[in-house]
Amino acid sequence: MSKYWSKLAAGLEPYVPGEQPKDRKYIKLNTNENPYPPSPKVIDAIKAAVDENLKLYPDPNGVALKMTLANYYGLNQEQVFVGNGSDEVLAFSFMAFFDPNNPILFPDITYSFYPVYAKVFKIDYELVPLNDDFTIPIDKLLKDNGGVIIPNPNAPTGSFLTLEFIEEILSHNKEKVVIVDEAYVDFGGVSALTLIDKYPNLLVIQTLSKSRSLAGLRVGFAMGHEDLIKGLDTIKNSINSYTLDRLALIGAVEAIKDDEYFQDKKNRIISTREKATGQLSKMGFKIVPSKANFVFISHPTVKAEDLFIWLKEKSILVRYFRQPRIDNYLRVSIGSDEEMDTFIKALGSIIT
Amino acid sequence: MSKYWSKLAAGLEPYVPGEQPKDRKYIKLNTNENPYPPSPKVIDAIKAAVDENLKLYPDPNGVALKMTLANYYGLNQEQVFVGNGSDEVLAFSFMAFFDPNNPILFPDITYSFYPVYAKVFKIDYELVPLNDDFTIPIDKLLKDNGGVIIPNPNAPTGSFLTLEFIEEILSHNKEKVVIVDEAYVDFGGVSALTLIDKYPNLLVIQTLSKSRSLAGLRVGFAMGHEDLIKGLDTIKNSINSYTLDRLALIGAVEAIKDDEYFQDKKNRIISTREKATGQLSKMGFKIVPSKANFVFISHPTVKAEDLFIWLKEKSILVRYFRQPRIDNYLRVSIGSDEEMDTFIKALGSIIT
Repeated sequence: MSKYWSKLAAGLEPYVPGEQPKDRKYIKLNTNENPYPPSPKVIDAIKAAVDENLKLYPDPNGVALKMTLANYYGLNQEQVFVGNGSDEVLAFSFMAFFDPNNPILFPDITYSFYPVYAKVFKIDYELVPLNDDFTIPIDKLLKDNGGVIIPNPNAPTGSFLTLEFIEEILSHNKEKVVIVDEAYVDFGGVSALTLIDKYPNLLVIQTLSKSRSLAGLRVGFAMGHEDLIKGLDTIKNSINSYTLDRLALIGAVEAIKDDEYFQDKKNRIISTREKATGQLSKMGFKIVPSKANFVFISHPTVKAEDLFIWLKEKSILVRYFRQPRIDNYLRVSIGSDEEMDTFIKALGSIIT
Repeated sequence: MSKYWSKLAAGLEPYVPGEQPKDRKYIKLNTNENPYPPSPKVIDAIKAAVDENLKLYPDPNGVALKMTLANYYGLNQEQVFVGNGSDEVLAFSFMAFFDPNNPILFPDITYSFYPVYAKVFKIDYELVPLNDDFTIPIDKLLKDNGGVIIPNPNAPTGSFLTLEFIEEILSHNKEKVVIVDEAYVDFGGVSALTLIDKYPNLLVIQTLSKSRSLAGLRVGFAMGHEDLIKGLDTIKNSINSYTLDRLALIGAVEAIKDDEYFQDKKNRIISTREKATGQLSKMGFKIVPSKANFVFISHPTVKAEDLFIWLKEKSILVRYFRQPRIDNYLRVSIGSDEEMDTFIKALGSIIT
């Protein structure tokens, strides 16, 4: 800190992303990246676009991408917002829809960026404690609030809420915006998208980082009533007119269009997850039922932190959160079958 | 607007970037893009990087790019911040260094994004009226303030301040941050970079969009004392861990490394500017002396707005600001020699 920092900066504790050590080659099961490469059509389209037009600004409105997403999800383009990863879309959403002094609600165990957004944009919040099995106590989300944000599936637990549950929150909360953060929905969940026309207070946020294998390209998007999308555009255009570069816009369009590739890869990840779940279960792990591309696991006799350190020594990275209630859990991203075999085998040599 | 918008969103008037009409082919002299393509080495490096690694997150700290910039500018990497265009870097700077209720100072005629940042981050500001010749009245920047932001060269005028002037502001203002926005400095100005070690309150912001022909890639950067850089990182990491995608990071490194290409192209733009300035002067235009890749011009008998409309009909886009004091001026980006010849010829047929 320094005397030149604003009061805001001085009061912040930034989000810390998963580590990316470069000292040797790791099996990376710690940042929920996709083990499969992006579609070859994405690669080809981006390569073809690397030309002299990089001297020109991108389309500030990302219309081609908005139209592609609208077409794919059965919306119109005024119902779609695009941004630099779902993190940026989430940040803009906090600014666009939530007010100071009117606490928003989110689970106590969830994406650890939410409290950071709340602090940087000075939004009060109230944590809703999850049940002991990490399910969400619905009644506690029905109280008065300044807005709700729920990830579905939740992170880092992988738990999935049914649409009936989401709809109950929406219908009890018609005066405030409910954000459903669906970063992981493609791995077996059901999107709340179908509720958009019925609930003008619903904003669904997704990303191309996980299910479309494009964490390196930074593309996220939001879908909802066009009034909500206009609010997001107002914030974006007050901060940075061009958040998505020309190559990201082009790659994202192709990633959405190549549905066959997407379906194939996400089905493989689901099947690897189910196989790994069975194996981990046999080893005595408690596993939160997951609809995401990761599993949240805990062992009755070996401490999570010890496993984390030990796996890292074996060049396998998983995510460990030194946080109340979950400090005996590991979040393990689903890699390829080969990566998961190596991971399970490594565990097998420490857990007997 | 809608009942779901925050009070913040409801009170904003977003920045409006220069138009990008697609109905026909235009000579684009309206958004200060570079008429020359990026270095072939940039193109080659990006193409080579379009591969399966796009599935992985980029380096959140952009260390390779920070090191390249530090090396080029004779700094250490802790003195460099990188972001998604200088617009994002500016936005984060407002958050990191300026407080509400302590008005910052900037010129009344300047980059029109500054008042937008001030509003979105609730920073009070006071406009310093430029002199009639669009020079900055230095005494008015020496009063008590919560910070100062000055573009050098200024936009949309192109006027350049000497380093003595900048240093006077810095030394009168040691308790607050002074941001020098050098988006256009490469076209004949002198950077305040040399003052960084002497003034820990100085932040210099630059971009690859103009002089490195990479508007489409979205890369900006800031240089200053490492305490200021840490402040910017704190804000960035509270909003979006990965603002620069893998391809932007790689292209930016090559753009800085290929200094020969950069020098050649910016010298051509400077020489085209000087030639165009002479021609416009002969046609009776008043031209603000410019050290940028644009000129700010006014004609004694033909109205700027009429010229703007008439040029657009001839498929030539320039920038017209419907704003007090400058509503009889046009900002004309410096294109290639051929583009400027077409522009001058078109003007010649209306101005006799």
